[in-house]
Amino acid sequence: MSIVTIIGSGMMGSAMARPASDNGHEVRLVGSPLDDKIIAAVKAGQNHPTLKRSFEGVAKAYYITELKQALEGAEVIVAGISSFGVDWFTENVLPILPKNVLVVSITKGMRLEDDDTLNVFPHYFASKRPDLNFVAVGGPCICFELFDRRHTMVYYCGKNIDAVKKAKATFGTNYYHIVPSTDTIAVECSVALKNAYAMGVSLAVGLAEREKGITDATGITDNCVPGAPDLNPIYNPQAALFAQSCLEMRRLVEMLGGNGGLVAGLPGAGDLYVTVFGGRTRRLGTLLGRGMSYPQVKEVLSGVTLEAVAIITRVAEFLRRASKAGKADLKKFPLMMHMDSILNAASPVALDWDSFGEF
Amino acid sequence: MSIVTIIGSGMMGSAMARPASDNGHEVRLVGSPLDDKIIAAVKAGQNHPTLKRSFEGVAKAYYITELKQALEGAEVIVAGISSFGVDWFTENVLPILPKNVLVVSITKGMRLEDDDTLNVFPHYFASKRPDLNFVAVGGPCICFELFDRRHTMVYYCGKNIDAVKKAKATFGTNYYHIVPSTDTIAVECSVALKNAYAMGVSLAVGLAEREKGITDATGITDNCVPGAPDLNPIYNPQAALFAQSCLEMRRLVEMLGGNGGLVAGLPGAGDLYVTVFGGRTRRLGTLLGRGMSYPQVKEVLSGVTLEAVAIITRVAEFLRRASKAGKADLKKFPLMMHMDSILNAASPVALDWDSFGEF
Repeated sequence: MSIVTIIGSGMMGSAMARPASDNGHEVRLVGSPLDDKIIAAVKAGQNHPTLKRSFEGVAKAYYITELKQALEGAEVIVAGISSFGVDWFTENVLPILPKNVLVVSITKGMRLEDDDTLNVFPHYFASKRPDLNFVAVGGPCICFELFDRRHTMVYYCGKNIDAVKKAKATFGTNYYHIVPSTDTIAVECSVALKNAYAMGVSLAVGLAEREKGITDATGITDNCVPGAPDLNPIYNPQAALFAQSCLEMRRLVEMLGGNGGLVAGLPGAGDLYVTVFGGRTRRLGTLLGRGMSYPQVKEVLSGVTLEAVAIITRVAEFLRRASKAGKADLKKFPLMMHMDSILNAASPVALDWDSFGEF
Repeated sequence: MSIVTIIGSGMMGSAMARPASDNGHEVRLVGSPLDDKIIAAVKAGQNHPTLKRSFEGVAKAYYITELKQALEGAEVIVAGISSFGVDWFTENVLPILPKNVLVVSITKGMRLEDDDTLNVFPHYFASKRPDLNFVAVGGPCICFELFDRRHTMVYYCGKNIDAVKKAKATFGTNYYHIVPSTDTIAVECSVALKNAYAMGVSLAVGLAEREKGITDATGITDNCVPGAPDLNPIYNPQAALFAQSCLEMRRLVEMLGGNGGLVAGLPGAGDLYVTVFGGRTRRLGTLLGRGMSYPQVKEVLSGVTLEAVAIITRVAEFLRRASKAGKADLKKFPLMMHMDSILNAASPVALDWDSFGEF
C-alpha cells in the first residue's frame, strides 16, 4: 500500500480519496490556499463542507502550510485543482514534488499557448517537470456519486502506459472502472470541451422556459433537474445541440491530432451527458437561454467558478487565430463561436440552425 | 405545392403532417388497418387520440379502405409505419404506389436477411420497388415537439441525393431542420440501435432505484421523468452505459460499412439522448433494472409496442451468426449481448463493467 496525497480539496479532488482509501492506501488531503475552511472542517471531524460527506477513516486533512509533511513518503499525487488553480500549482507545487512520484491530474481545461497552439494540462505540466509521469483522468464522473461508490467509468490517459496502469491499480475498484489510454489529447480535449458544450445544450432548456414566460432566475437551484420547472421539458432542440456539440468536439479533437472516434464514448458524449444534467454549467446556459445577459447571470451565480466561460473564451480565441492563419474554418464551429459571442460580445442567444449539422 | 400522403397514422407518421402542411402541401393521413379509431376521431374533428392534437387545417384523414383515393395525385408518400408494420406495408402498399412518387420512410429498425446480413429498411423497400426513390428520416425527434413546431434537427438520407433534396424541400421549415446525407447505413443503423441502447442506459436508472427499495412498477407513467421518483437520480452509471452504447453503435455501423463518425452526432448520440428520457423504452429498461423479469414487465407495459426488444433480438442473433462465421467478435458488443440475455434467456441484470470501454 502506498501514500496518496491529494492537493486541492475541491469536490472532485476530495472524492478521489474514496477509491484510494478503499484500496488500502493512506490518503492525505491537502487544501489549496483557498481551502482553509474545508480543511478546518475535515480536521475537526465535520463533514466536508462542499462534498457534504464525512472523511473519517477516508483521508487525513492538511493545510497548505503542511504540504511538505503531506508529501513525505507519497508515491502518488493527485493534482486536484480546477483550471483556475493551474498557475498556482505550477509555480508552487510542481517544483517541490518529490522525484519519481506519479501525478494523477483531474484538472479540466486547456491552455492557449503563446505560439497560438492549444495545449492540454497534462502536457503543460509535463513540460515543467519532464522527470515525472503524468496521468490524466477524463470521463463522466459526478463527485458525489464516486464518493458514494456508484458505478463510475472513466479514462486514465498518459504517454507512459505503465504509469497509466499504476494509476489504475491505485484507484480502480469494483465501482470505479478505469479504461487506460495513451490518447491524452482526445480525452483531455473532449472533457475540457464538454464544459463548454454543456452550456450550449442548456441554452435550449432556457429558450424553452422563456417561451413559457420564465425570463429570470426562477427555480435555479444547486440541483436543478433537467427541463423546465413544470417537468415538461423539451428535448428535440436539446438533442440537436447535443449532437452539434459532439460534432464540433470531434472536429476540434481531430484538428489537435487526437482520435475523434473517442468523442462517441466516455470523454465526449458520455461526459457531456452527465454535465448537462445539473450543476453550474447547466445553470449558466439555462439562464442565458432565458434571455438574461451574462453580467446578470454572473450576479445570480456569484461565487461559482465557471470553467465553461474560461474554456469557451480560450477555444474561440484559438479558433480565430487558427482561422487567420488558414488552419481552421470557423464555419465548422458555429455553436462554439456563438457561445463566445453571447459571453464576450453581449450577443443575444440566436441559434443559427442552418449552420449546424455535418456537411 | 404537392400532395403528401402519409400512410400509417401512428404518432410519428402523423406528426410529419405539420411541416408538410406548413409548407402549403395538401396532406392526407391514411390509417393502417390497426388505426381505424384514430382515423374516425380525426375525421370527426376530434383530437388525434395518441398525438392528442387537432388535425383541423393540417391533414385530411382516410381509412385504409380509402387508400387508392388518398394516393391519387400524390407526389410524396410517407411510410409512417413502425417496424411491426413493415411486412404489411411491403405486401399491400408498396406494390400499388404510383410510379415516380418519392417515398419518405420513418420506419426504424433492421431486418435480419436469410443470408445472415443485417439490412436497413430503406434498402429493403428499394429492393421491392427499385423504380422508386426512398429517403429515410433519422435523428432525435419527439413527435409531440415536431407537431408543436419545436426546433428539431434530423438527417434525411438516401442513395439519390436529388431525391433527398426534394424531400428536404417538402418537409424542411424554419423549425424542422434537415441535414441531407447519402450514408443510409450509418443513419438508419444508428437510429435503429438507439432504441436498443436506450434500454441499456435505462437499466442504470432501475438499478439505482432498486437500491432505494423500488422493485416494482411504482411511479412508471407515460411521461416518467429522468431519474428516480425522488428526483435524485444517479448519473455516473447512466453516462457509462451511454458511452458504451455509442461505442457499440459505432462498431456495428462500421461493421455494416457505414461511417462510424456519424454516431457522434444526430443519429447516434443525439437520438439516444432523446430516447433515454422517456417513453416505452425508458420504462422497459427501468423496470428490468429494478429487478422485474421481462414477462412481468411485458404485463405492466401491455399494449405497448417494444421496438427495443425486436431490434435487440435481431441484432444479437445477427452478431451470433457473424461470430460463428468469423466476421464478428461478440466481446466487442457486451452490452448488446447482455440485453439479449435479459430479454431472451431470463438472465438477471448483471452489468459486466470490466467488459466495457475501448480496448
